[in-house]
Amino acid sequence: MLAHTIEEVREKRREWKGLKVGLVPTMGALHEGHLSLIKKAKETCDKVVVSVFVNPIQFGPSEDYDKYPRTLDKDYELCSKEGVDLVFAPSPSEMYGDGGKLSNDTLTYVCPPFFYVNKLCGKTRVGHFDGVCTVVLKLFNIVQPDYGFFGQKDAQQVVIIKKMVKDLNVPIEIVQCPIVREESGLALSSRNKYLSQEGKKDALVLSSILNNIKLCYQKGITDIEALKETAYSFLTDKHEMEYLEILDRNTLEEKSKADNDSIALIACRVEGVRLIDNTYLGER
Amino acid sequence: MLAHTIEEVREKRREWKGLKVGLVPTMGALHEGHLSLIKKAKETCDKVVVSVFVNPIQFGPSEDYDKYPRTLDKDYELCSKEGVDLVFAPSPSEMYGDGGKLSNDTLTYVCPPFFYVNKLCGKTRVGHFDGVCTVVLKLFNIVQPDYGFFGQKDAQQVVIIKKMVKDLNVPIEIVQCPIVREESGLALSSRNKYLSQEGKKDALVLSSILNNIKLCYQKGITDIEALKETAYSFLTDKHEMEYLEILDRNTLEEKSKADNDSIALIACRVEGVRLIDNTYLGER
Repeated sequence: MLAHTIEEVREKRREWKGLKVGLVPTMGALHEGHLSLIKKAKETCDKVVVSVFVNPIQFGPSEDYDKYPRTLDKDYELCSKEGVDLVFAPSPSEMYGDGGKLSNDTLTYVCPPFFYVNKLCGKTRVGHFDGVCTVVLKLFNIVQPDYGFFGQKDAQQVVIIKKMVKDLNVPIEIVQCPIVREESGLALSSRNKYLSQEGKKDALVLSSILNNIKLCYQKGITDIEALKETAYSFLTDKHEMEYLEILDRNTLEEKSKADNDSIALIACRVEGVRLIDNTYLGER
Repeated sequence: MLAHTIEEVREKRREWKGLKVGLVPTMGALHEGHLSLIKKAKETCDKVVVSVFVNPIQFGPSEDYDKYPRTLDKDYELCSKEGVDLVFAPSPSEMYGDGGKLSNDTLTYVCPPFFYVNKLCGKTRVGHFDGVCTVVLKLFNIVQPDYGFFGQKDAQQVVIIKKMVKDLNVPIEIVQCPIVREESGLALSSRNKYLSQEGKKDALVLSSILNNIKLCYQKGITDIEALKETAYSFLTDKHEMEYLEILDRNTLEEKSKADNDSIALIACRVEGVRLIDNTYLGER
Protein backbone atom coordinates (compact mmCIF):
# COMPACT_ATOMS: atom_id res chain seq x y z
CA MET A 1 0.00 0.00 0.00
CA LEU A 2 1.11 3.53 -0.83
CA ALA A 3 0.23 6.36 1.58
CA HIS A 4 0.77 10.04 0.96
CA THR A 5 -0.76 11.44 4.15
CA ILE A 6 0.11 11.19 7.82
CA GLU A 7 -3.50 10.32 8.63
CA GLU A 8 -3.40 7.23 6.38
CA VAL A 9 -0.29 6.02 8.21
CA ARG A 10 -1.84 6.64 11.62
CA GLU A 11 -4.91 4.68 10.59
CA LYS A 12 -2.81 1.76 9.38
CA ARG A 13 -0.79 1.90 12.60
CA ARG A 14 -3.97 1.63 14.66
CA GLU A 15 -4.94 -1.47 12.65
CA TRP A 16 -1.53 -2.95 13.50
CA LYS A 17 -1.92 -2.50 17.26
CA GLY A 18 0.11 -5.10 19.11
CA LEU A 19 2.22 -6.06 16.07
CA LYS A 20 5.96 -5.47 15.79
CA VAL A 21 6.49 -2.66 13.28
CA GLY A 22 9.74 -1.74 11.55
CA LEU A 23 10.49 1.54 9.77
CA VAL A 24 13.10 1.99 7.04
CA PRO A 25 13.43 5.75 6.46
CA THR A 26 14.77 6.54 2.98
CA MET A 27 14.98 9.38 0.49
CA GLY A 28 13.97 6.96 -2.28
CA ALA A 29 16.06 6.14 -5.35
CA LEU A 30 16.26 2.74 -3.70
CA HIS A 31 19.21 0.45 -4.36
CA GLU A 32 20.49 -2.83 -2.93
CA GLY A 33 21.69 -0.98 0.16
CA HIS A 34 18.13 0.05 1.00
CA LEU A 35 16.85 -3.40 0.08
CA SER A 36 19.24 -4.96 2.61
CA LEU A 37 17.63 -2.77 5.30
CA ILE A 38 14.15 -3.78 4.13
CA LYS A 39 15.10 -7.47 4.15
CA LYS A 40 16.47 -7.14 7.68
CA ALA A 41 13.24 -5.40 8.73
CA LYS A 42 11.12 -8.13 7.15
CA GLU A 43 13.06 -10.75 9.14
CA THR A 44 12.55 -8.95 12.45
CA CYS A 45 9.09 -7.37 12.24
CA ASP A 46 5.46 -8.28 11.57
CA LYS A 47 4.89 -5.16 9.47
CA VAL A 48 7.40 -3.06 7.55
CA VAL A 49 7.01 0.58 6.58
CA VAL A 50 9.37 2.27 4.13
CA SER A 51 9.27 6.04 4.01
CA VAL A 52 10.32 7.75 0.79
CA PHE A 53 10.87 11.44 1.37
CA VAL A 54 13.52 13.78 0.04
CA ASN A 55 13.75 15.94 3.14
CA PRO A 56 14.25 19.60 2.19
CA ILE A 57 15.52 20.69 5.61
CA GLN A 58 18.57 18.44 5.53
CA PHE A 59 19.92 19.99 2.32
CA GLY A 60 22.02 23.15 2.35
CA PRO A 61 21.17 25.98 -0.08
CA SER A 62 24.00 24.97 -2.46
CA GLU A 63 23.26 21.24 -2.26
CA ASP A 64 21.43 18.88 -4.61
CA TYR A 65 17.86 18.97 -3.20
CA ASP A 66 16.23 19.82 -6.56
CA LYS A 67 18.45 17.47 -8.50
CA TYR A 68 18.22 14.54 -6.05
CA PRO A 69 16.82 11.48 -7.93
CA ARG A 70 13.09 10.91 -7.43
CA THR A 71 11.89 7.52 -8.66
CA LEU A 72 8.78 6.77 -6.61
CA ASP A 73 7.13 4.38 -9.11
CA LYS A 74 10.21 2.21 -9.27
CA ASP A 75 10.76 2.49 -5.50
CA TYR A 76 7.21 1.38 -4.84
CA GLU A 77 7.61 -1.58 -7.18
CA LEU A 78 10.82 -2.65 -5.42
CA CYS A 79 9.15 -2.33 -2.02
CA SER A 80 6.17 -4.38 -3.17
CA LYS A 81 8.48 -7.14 -4.38
CA GLU A 82 10.14 -7.22 -0.97
CA GLY A 83 6.77 -7.53 0.74
CA VAL A 84 6.82 -4.06 2.32
CA ASP A 85 3.43 -3.45 3.98
CA LEU A 86 3.30 0.32 3.61
CA VAL A 87 5.24 2.88 1.59
CA PHE A 88 4.86 6.36 3.03
CA ALA A 89 5.67 9.04 0.46
CA PRO A 90 4.49 12.40 1.79
CA SER A 91 4.81 15.74 0.04
CA PRO A 92 6.96 18.45 1.64
CA SER A 93 3.80 20.34 2.61
CA GLU A 94 2.31 17.24 4.25
CA MET A 95 5.44 17.06 6.40
CA TYR A 96 6.10 20.75 7.01
CA GLY A 97 2.88 22.61 6.19
CA ASP A 98 2.56 25.44 3.72
CA GLY A 99 4.15 28.06 5.93
CA GLY A 100 6.64 29.25 3.33
CA LYS A 101 10.37 29.15 4.04
CA LEU A 102 11.38 26.25 6.28
CA SER A 103 13.71 27.48 9.01
CA ASN A 104 14.28 27.44 12.74
CA ASP A 105 12.44 30.74 12.85
CA THR A 106 9.15 28.93 12.21
CA LEU A 107 9.73 25.21 12.86
CA THR A 108 10.64 23.15 15.92
CA TYR A 109 13.96 21.40 15.29
CA VAL A 110 15.69 18.47 16.93
CA CYS A 111 19.32 19.51 17.38
CA PRO A 112 21.89 16.81 18.03
CA PRO A 113 24.90 17.71 20.21
CA PHE A 114 27.59 19.95 18.70
CA PHE A 115 30.24 17.43 19.69
CA TYR A 116 28.78 14.87 17.27
CA VAL A 117 27.90 17.38 14.59
CA ASN A 118 30.92 19.66 14.31
CA LYS A 119 33.07 17.12 12.47
CA LEU A 120 33.08 14.87 9.40
CA CYS A 121 30.05 15.63 7.19
CA GLY A 122 28.63 18.12 9.68
CA LYS A 123 31.58 20.46 9.21
CA THR A 124 30.66 21.27 5.62
CA ARG A 125 26.94 20.38 5.72
CA VAL A 126 25.84 23.00 8.26
CA GLY A 127 22.40 22.22 9.68
CA HIS A 128 22.29 18.86 7.88
CA PHE A 129 22.03 16.71 11.00
CA ASP A 130 19.45 19.01 12.59
CA GLY A 131 17.36 18.38 9.49
CA VAL A 132 18.00 14.64 9.63
CA CYS A 133 17.13 14.29 13.32
CA THR A 134 14.02 16.42 12.91
CA VAL A 135 12.63 14.39 10.03
CA VAL A 136 13.57 11.07 11.60
CA LEU A 137 11.84 11.97 14.86
CA LYS A 138 8.79 13.11 12.88
CA LEU A 139 8.73 9.81 11.00
CA PHE A 140 9.16 7.92 14.29
CA ASN A 141 6.19 9.82 15.75
CA ILE A 142 4.06 9.25 12.66
CA VAL A 143 4.80 5.55 12.18
CA GLN A 144 5.49 4.69 15.85
CA PRO A 145 7.63 1.69 14.94
CA ASP A 146 9.31 -0.68 17.38
CA TYR A 147 12.47 -0.73 15.26
CA GLY A 148 14.17 1.78 12.97
CA PHE A 149 16.63 0.51 10.36
CA PHE A 150 19.64 2.57 9.26
CA GLY A 151 22.66 1.83 7.12
CA GLN A 152 26.22 2.03 8.38
CA LYS A 153 27.09 3.82 5.14
CA ASP A 154 25.98 7.05 6.82
CA ALA A 155 28.06 6.29 9.90
CA GLN A 156 27.89 9.73 11.51
CA GLN A 157 24.13 9.77 10.95
CA VAL A 158 23.63 6.43 12.73
CA VAL A 159 25.73 7.52 15.71
CA ILE A 160 23.74 10.76 15.91
CA ILE A 161 20.35 9.01 15.59
CA LYS A 162 21.30 6.53 18.30
CA LYS A 163 22.36 9.45 20.49
CA MET A 164 19.04 11.23 19.81
CA VAL A 165 17.06 8.11 20.69
CA LYS A 166 18.99 7.78 23.95
CA ASP A 167 18.90 11.47 24.87
CA LEU A 168 15.18 11.90 24.13
CA ASN A 169 14.16 8.45 25.45
CA VAL A 170 12.54 7.56 22.14
CA PRO A 171 10.94 4.12 22.69
CA ILE A 172 12.41 2.66 19.50
CA GLU A 173 15.34 0.31 18.90
CA ILE A 174 17.81 1.35 16.22
CA VAL A 175 19.10 -1.48 14.04
CA GLN A 176 22.25 -0.73 12.12
CA CYS A 177 22.95 -2.67 8.90
CA PRO A 178 26.28 -3.11 7.10
CA ILE A 179 27.33 -1.23 3.97
CA VAL A 180 26.39 -2.89 0.67
CA ARG A 181 28.99 -2.58 -2.08
CA GLU A 182 29.27 -3.20 -5.79
CA GLU A 183 31.63 -6.02 -6.70
CA SER A 184 34.21 -3.31 -7.43
CA GLY A 185 34.08 -2.23 -3.79
CA LEU A 186 32.15 1.00 -4.45
CA ALA A 187 29.66 1.61 -1.62
CA LEU A 188 26.11 1.85 -2.97
CA SER A 189 24.64 5.34 -2.89
CA SER A 190 21.78 7.07 -4.64
CA ARG A 191 24.30 9.73 -5.60
CA ASN A 192 26.33 7.20 -7.64
CA LYS A 193 23.76 7.91 -10.36
CA TYR A 194 25.41 11.30 -10.90
CA LEU A 195 28.72 9.62 -11.88
CA SER A 196 29.96 8.79 -15.40
CA GLN A 197 31.55 5.36 -16.04
CA GLU A 198 34.92 7.03 -15.68
CA GLY A 199 33.80 8.71 -12.46
CA LYS A 200 32.69 5.39 -10.98
CA LYS A 201 36.23 4.09 -11.53
CA ASP A 202 37.75 7.14 -9.89
CA ALA A 203 35.29 6.70 -7.04
CA LEU A 204 36.91 3.39 -6.14
CA VAL A 205 39.65 5.28 -4.29
CA LEU A 206 37.31 5.72 -1.32
CA SER A 207 36.98 2.02 -0.61
CA SER A 208 40.59 1.39 -1.66
CA ILE A 209 41.91 3.93 0.82
CA LEU A 210 39.74 2.50 3.60
CA ASN A 211 40.68 -1.09 2.81
CA ASN A 212 44.33 -0.20 2.82
CA ILE A 213 44.06 1.58 6.17
CA LYS A 214 42.30 -1.44 7.63
CA LEU A 215 45.00 -3.70 6.23
CA CYS A 216 47.77 -1.53 7.70
CA TYR A 217 45.96 -1.47 11.06
CA GLN A 218 45.56 -5.21 11.06
CA LYS A 219 49.28 -5.52 10.28
CA GLY A 220 49.99 -3.61 13.48
CA ILE A 221 50.11 0.10 12.61
CA THR A 222 48.08 2.03 15.21
CA ASP A 223 49.49 5.53 14.75
CA ILE A 224 46.58 7.51 13.36
CA GLU A 225 48.60 10.01 11.34
CA ALA A 226 50.61 7.17 9.80
CA LEU A 227 47.42 5.33 8.85
CA LYS A 228 45.93 8.46 7.29
CA GLU A 229 49.10 9.15 5.32
CA THR A 230 48.73 5.85 3.48
CA ALA A 231 45.85 7.49 1.60
CA TYR A 232 47.89 9.97 -0.42
CA SER A 233 49.31 7.46 -2.89
CA PHE A 234 45.75 6.69 -4.07
CA LEU A 235 44.74 10.23 -4.89
CA THR A 236 44.90 11.92 -8.28
CA ASP A 237 43.66 15.27 -9.56
CA LYS A 238 40.25 13.60 -10.04
CA HIS A 239 39.80 13.50 -6.28
CA GLU A 240 38.83 16.41 -4.11
CA MET A 241 39.28 15.06 -0.59
CA GLU A 242 36.99 16.53 2.07
CA TYR A 243 38.00 14.51 5.09
CA LEU A 244 39.68 11.31 6.19
CA GLU A 245 39.35 10.58 9.89
CA ILE A 246 39.92 7.69 12.29
CA LEU A 247 37.66 7.99 15.36
CA ASP A 248 35.89 5.95 17.99
CA ARG A 249 33.04 4.14 16.22
CA ASN A 250 30.51 4.72 19.01
CA THR A 251 31.33 8.21 20.26
CA LEU A 252 33.14 9.79 17.28
CA GLU A 253 35.88 10.84 19.71
CA GLU A 254 39.47 11.22 18.57
CA LYS A 255 41.82 8.61 19.96
CA SER A 256 45.53 8.65 20.58
CA LYS A 257 45.91 5.28 18.80
CA ALA A 258 43.70 3.22 16.49
CA ASP A 259 42.11 0.18 18.12
CA ASN A 260 39.40 -2.40 17.44
CA ASP A 261 36.68 0.18 18.18
CA SER A 262 38.05 2.56 15.57
CA ILE A 263 36.26 3.56 12.40
CA ALA A 264 37.91 5.14 9.37
CA LEU A 265 35.67 7.59 7.52
CA ILE A 266 36.21 9.32 4.22
CA ALA A 267 34.44 11.96 2.15
CA CYS A 268 35.72 12.83 -1.30
CA ARG A 269 34.32 14.54 -4.37
CA VAL A 270 34.58 12.88 -7.76
CA GLU A 271 33.21 14.73 -10.79
CA GLY A 272 31.77 17.20 -8.30
CA VAL A 273 29.73 14.44 -6.64
CA ARG A 274 30.23 14.18 -2.90
CA LEU A 275 30.77 10.54 -1.88
CA ILE A 276 31.27 9.05 1.58
CA ASP A 277 32.38 5.67 2.86
CA ASN A 278 33.67 4.12 6.08
CA THR A 279 34.98 0.92 7.59
CA TYR A 280 35.46 -0.57 11.03
CA LEU A 281 39.15 -1.27 11.53
CA GLY A 282 38.57 -4.14 13.97
CA GLU A 283 36.34 -6.13 11.63
CA ARG A 284 37.72 -8.83 9.36
CA MET B 1 2.95 4.48 43.37
CA LEU B 2 6.21 6.41 43.34
CA ALA B 3 8.75 5.67 40.59
CA HIS B 4 12.26 7.06 40.42
CA THR B 5 13.48 5.26 37.30
CA ILE B 6 12.49 5.35 33.65
CA GLU B 7 12.37 1.56 33.56
CA GLU B 8 9.71 1.47 36.32
CA VAL B 9 7.55 3.86 34.30
CA ARG B 10 7.98 1.86 31.11
CA GLU B 11 6.98 -1.31 32.94
CA LYS B 12 3.86 0.35 34.36
CA ARG B 13 3.04 1.71 30.91
CA ARG B 14 3.20 -1.79 29.43
CA GLU B 15 0.75 -2.96 32.11
CA TRP B 16 -1.59 -0.14 31.06
CA LYS B 17 -1.62 -1.13 27.38
CA GLY B 18 -4.88 -0.05 25.77
CA LEU B 19 -5.82 2.35 28.58
CA LYS B 20 -6.08 6.13 28.17
CA VAL B 21 -3.13 7.66 29.99
CA GLY B 22 -2.73 11.30 31.00
CA LEU B 23 0.50 13.02 32.00
CA VAL B 24 0.75 16.12 34.17
CA PRO B 25 4.38 17.32 33.98
CA THR B 26 5.36 19.42 37.00
CA MET B 27 8.42 20.67 38.84
CA GLY B 28 6.73 19.74 42.13
CA ALA B 29 5.91 22.16 44.96
CA LEU B 30 2.36 21.34 43.97
CA HIS B 31 -0.42 23.84 44.59
CA GLU B 32 -4.08 24.14 43.64
CA GLY B 33 -3.04 25.07 40.10
CA HIS B 34 -1.37 21.71 39.63
CA LEU B 35 -4.25 19.97 41.38
CA SER B 36 -6.67 21.45 38.87
CA LEU B 37 -4.61 19.85 36.08
CA ILE B 38 -4.60 16.54 37.95
CA LYS B 39 -8.37 16.69 38.47
CA LYS B 40 -8.90 17.40 34.78
CA ALA B 41 -6.63 14.47 33.92
CA LYS B 42 -8.54 12.17 36.29
CA GLU B 43 -11.80 13.13 34.56
CA THR B 44 -10.46 12.38 31.09
CA CYS B 45 -8.11 9.42 31.51
CA ASP B 46 -8.03 5.87 32.88
CA LYS B 47 -4.59 6.36 34.41
CA VAL B 48 -2.86 9.55 35.50
CA VAL B 49 0.88 10.09 35.80
CA VAL B 50 2.32 13.16 37.52
CA SER B 51 5.99 13.84 36.92
CA VAL B 52 7.88 15.81 39.57
CA PHE B 53 11.21 16.98 38.22
CA VAL B 54 13.04 20.25 38.67
CA ASN B 55 14.60 20.30 35.22
CA PRO B 56 18.14 21.71 35.38
CA ILE B 57 18.38 22.50 31.66
CA GLN B 58 15.52 25.00 31.70
CA PHE B 59 17.18 27.21 34.32
CA GLY B 60 19.74 29.86 33.37
CA PRO B 61 23.01 30.09 35.32
CA SER B 62 21.74 33.04 37.38
CA GLU B 63 18.28 31.54 38.01
CA ASP B 64 16.81 29.75 41.02
CA TYR B 65 17.54 26.08 40.19
CA ASP B 66 19.22 25.31 43.53
CA LYS B 67 16.73 27.34 45.52
CA TYR B 68 13.60 26.06 43.72
CA PRO B 69 11.26 24.46 46.33
CA ARG B 70 11.51 20.65 46.52
CA THR B 71 8.73 19.05 48.56
CA LEU B 72 8.40 15.52 47.18
CA ASP B 73 6.87 13.92 50.29
CA LYS B 74 4.10 16.48 50.39
CA ASP B 75 3.66 16.35 46.60
CA TYR B 76 3.33 12.59 46.71
CA GLU B 77 0.74 12.82 49.47
CA LEU B 78 -1.30 15.37 47.50
CA CYS B 79 -1.13 13.17 44.39
CA SER B 80 -2.23 10.11 46.33
CA LYS B 81 -5.22 12.01 47.69
CA GLU B 82 -6.20 12.94 44.13
CA GLY B 83 -5.98 9.32 43.03
CA VAL B 84 -2.89 9.76 40.84
CA ASP B 85 -1.77 6.33 39.64
CA LEU B 86 1.94 7.03 39.30
CA VAL B 87 4.25 9.79 40.48
CA PHE B 88 7.47 9.85 38.48
CA ALA B 89 10.24 11.66 40.35
CA PRO B 90 13.53 10.95 38.60
CA SER B 91 16.94 12.25 39.62
CA PRO B 92 18.80 14.57 37.22
CA SER B 93 21.21 11.74 36.41
CA GLU B 94 18.32 9.37 35.62
CA MET B 95 17.10 11.95 33.09
CA TYR B 96 20.40 13.20 31.71
CA GLY B 97 23.06 10.65 32.63
CA ASP B 98 26.24 11.37 34.53
CA GLY B 99 28.04 13.03 31.67
CA GLY B 100 29.01 16.15 33.59
CA LYS B 101 27.95 19.56 32.33
CA LEU B 102 24.57 19.53 30.56
CA SER B 103 24.81 21.49 27.34
CA ASN B 104 24.08 21.32 23.64
CA ASP B 105 27.66 20.19 23.20
CA THR B 106 26.78 16.80 24.65
CA LEU B 107 22.97 16.49 24.64
CA THR B 108 20.32 16.36 21.93
CA TYR B 109 17.96 19.32 22.35
CA VAL B 110 14.50 20.07 21.06
CA CYS B 111 14.59 23.68 19.88
CA PRO B 112 11.29 25.49 19.37
CA PRO B 113 11.14 28.15 16.64
CA PHE B 114 12.89 31.47 17.26
CA PHE B 115 9.70 33.33 16.39
CA TYR B 116 7.96 31.85 19.44
CA VAL B 117 10.96 32.02 21.70
CA ASN B 118 12.50 35.44 21.09
CA LYS B 119 9.84 37.35 23.02
CA LEU B 120 8.15 37.48 26.42
CA CYS B 121 9.90 35.12 28.89
CA GLY B 122 12.25 33.79 26.21
CA LYS B 123 13.91 37.19 25.79
CA THR B 124 15.43 37.15 29.26
CA ARG B 125 15.41 33.39 29.89
CA VAL B 126 17.81 32.39 27.10
CA GLY B 127 17.64 28.65 26.38
CA HIS B 128 14.71 28.21 28.77
CA PHE B 129 12.23 26.92 26.19
CA ASP B 130 14.80 24.61 24.59
CA GLY B 131 15.16 23.07 28.05
CA VAL B 132 11.39 22.90 28.52
CA CYS B 133 10.69 21.29 25.13
CA THR B 134 13.52 18.81 25.60
CA VAL B 135 12.34 17.61 28.99
CA VAL B 136 8.68 17.55 27.96
CA LEU B 137 9.45 15.45 24.88
CA LYS B 138 11.56 13.13 27.05
CA LEU B 139 8.67 12.76 29.51
CA PHE B 140 6.26 12.16 26.61
CA ASN B 141 8.56 9.42 25.29
CA ILE B 142 8.98 7.85 28.71
CA VAL B 143 5.32 7.91 29.77
CA GLN B 144 3.76 7.70 26.26
CA PRO B 145 0.53 9.33 27.39
CA ASP B 146 -2.50 10.00 25.23
CA TYR B 147 -2.98 13.44 26.80
CA GLY B 148 -0.60 16.00 28.29
CA PHE B 149 -2.01 18.61 30.69
CA PHE B 150 -0.56 22.11 30.91
CA GLY B 151 -1.63 25.27 32.68
CA GLN B 152 -2.45 28.50 30.88
CA LYS B 153 -0.44 30.29 33.56
CA ASP B 154 2.67 29.57 31.48
CA ALA B 155 0.99 30.83 28.32
CA GLN B 156 4.08 31.06 26.14
CA GLN B 157 5.07 27.56 27.25
CA VAL B 158 1.72 26.06 26.21
CA VAL B 159 1.83 27.74 22.80
CA ILE B 160 5.38 26.44 22.30
CA ILE B 161 4.53 22.90 23.46
CA LYS B 162 1.52 22.80 21.15
CA LYS B 163 3.74 23.98 18.30
CA MET B 164 6.33 21.29 19.14
CA VAL B 165 3.65 18.59 19.17
CA LYS B 166 2.39 19.75 15.78
CA ASP B 167 5.83 20.24 14.19
CA LEU B 168 7.20 16.90 15.41
CA ASN B 169 3.92 14.97 14.92
CA VAL B 170 3.95 13.85 18.55
CA PRO B 171 0.92 11.53 18.91
CA ILE B 172 -0.34 13.25 22.06
CA GLU B 173 -3.17 15.71 22.64
CA ILE B 174 -2.35 18.81 24.68
CA VAL B 175 -5.04 19.87 27.13
CA GLN B 176 -4.75 23.42 28.39
CA CYS B 177 -6.30 24.30 31.76
CA PRO B 178 -7.21 27.76 33.09
CA ILE B 179 -5.19 29.72 35.62
CA VAL B 180 -6.05 29.11 39.27
CA ARG B 181 -5.94 32.21 41.49
CA GLU B 182 -6.03 33.04 45.17
CA GLU B 183 -9.14 34.90 46.23
CA SER B 184 -7.03 38.07 46.04
CA GLY B 185 -6.51 37.49 42.32
CA LEU B 186 -2.87 36.39 42.63
CA ALA B 187 -2.14 33.59 40.16
CA LEU B 188 -0.87 30.49 41.96
CA SER B 189 2.81 29.75 41.43
CA SER B 190 5.39 27.69 43.24
CA ARG B 191 7.52 30.84 43.28
CA ASN B 192 4.93 32.66 45.43
CA LYS B 193 6.61 30.84 48.34
CA TYR B 194 9.56 33.22 47.97
CA LEU B 195 7.33 36.24 48.74
CA SER B 196 6.77 37.91 52.12
CA GLN B 197 3.22 38.88 53.15
CA GLU B 198 4.00 42.40 51.96
CA GLY B 199 5.37 41.04 48.70
CA LYS B 200 2.21 39.03 48.08
CA LYS B 201 0.22 42.26 48.31
CA ASP B 202 2.56 44.03 45.91
CA ALA B 203 2.27 41.03 43.57
CA LEU B 204 -1.42 41.76 43.11
CA VAL B 205 -0.54 44.43 40.55
CA LEU B 206 0.00 41.72 37.92
CA SER B 207 -3.59 40.51 37.98
CA SER B 208 -4.88 44.06 38.58
CA ILE B 209 -3.11 45.37 35.48
CA LEU B 210 -4.41 42.47 33.39
CA ASN B 211 -7.96 42.80 34.70
CA ASN B 212 -7.94 46.48 33.97
CA ILE B 213 -6.66 45.94 30.43
CA LYS B 214 -9.38 43.38 29.84
CA LEU B 215 -11.98 45.77 31.23
CA CYS B 216 -10.77 48.59 28.97
CA TYR B 217 -10.79 46.25 25.97
CA GLN B 218 -14.30 45.10 26.74
CA LYS B 219 -15.33 48.77 27.00
CA GLY B 220 -14.14 49.24 23.43
CA ILE B 221 -10.47 50.25 23.54
CA THR B 222 -8.55 48.20 20.97
CA ASP B 223 -5.45 50.34 20.54
CA ILE B 224 -2.65 48.22 21.95
CA GLU B 225 -0.41 51.03 23.14
CA ALA B 226 -3.37 52.69 24.85
CA LEU B 227 -4.26 49.42 26.60
CA LYS B 228 -0.66 48.91 27.75
CA GLU B 229 -0.44 52.47 29.06
CA THR B 230 -3.24 51.80 31.51
CA ALA B 231 -0.71 49.72 33.48
CA TYR B 232 1.51 52.57 34.64
CA SER B 233 -0.85 53.88 37.31
CA PHE B 234 -0.61 50.53 39.13
CA LEU B 235 3.16 50.42 39.41
CA THR B 236 5.26 51.54 42.36
CA ASP B 237 8.96 51.28 43.17
CA LYS B 238 8.24 47.76 44.46
CA HIS B 239 7.66 46.59 40.89
CA GLU B 240 10.34 45.84 38.38
CA MET B 241 8.41 45.34 35.16
CA GLU B 242 9.94 42.95 32.65
CA TYR B 243 7.33 42.94 29.93
CA LEU B 244 3.68 43.68 29.22
CA GLU B 245 2.50 42.53 25.80
CA ILE B 246 -0.77 42.05 23.96
CA LEU B 247 -0.43 39.37 21.27
CA ASP B 248 -2.40 36.76 19.37
CA ARG B 249 -3.18 33.99 21.86
CA ASN B 250 -2.48 31.15 19.42
CA THR B 251 0.49 32.41 17.42
CA LEU B 252 2.06 35.03 19.74
CA GLU B 253 2.06 37.42 16.77
CA GLU B 254 1.78 41.16 17.25
CA LYS B 255 -1.49 42.63 16.05
CA SER B 256 -2.40 46.08 14.90
CA LYS B 257 -5.47 46.11 17.19
CA ALA B 258 -6.59 44.00 20.16
CA ASP B 259 -9.40 41.54 19.39
CA ASN B 260 -11.15 38.55 20.94
CA ASP B 261 -8.15 36.32 20.16
CA SER B 262 -5.78 38.61 22.03
CA ILE B 263 -3.93 37.69 25.18
CA ALA B 264 -2.33 40.16 27.58
CA LEU B 265 0.83 38.85 29.24
CA ILE B 266 2.87 40.33 32.02
CA ALA B 267 6.13 39.56 33.81
CA CYS B 268 7.20 41.61 36.79
CA ARG B 269 9.64 41.19 39.67
CA VAL B 270 8.48 41.75 43.23
CA GLU B 271 11.05 41.38 46.02
CA GLY B 272 13.37 40.03 43.35
CA VAL B 273 10.92 37.19 42.58
CA ARG B 274 10.00 36.90 38.92
CA LEU B 275 6.23 36.51 38.54
CA ILE B 276 4.14 36.04 35.40
CA ASP B 277 0.45 36.18 34.63
CA ASN B 278 -1.83 36.50 31.60
CA THR B 279 -5.44 36.82 30.54
CA TYR B 280 -7.49 36.34 27.40
CA LEU B 281 -9.11 39.65 26.50
CA GLY B 282 -12.10 38.06 24.76
CA GLU B 283 -13.16 35.96 27.74
CA ARG B 284 -15.72 37.18 30.25
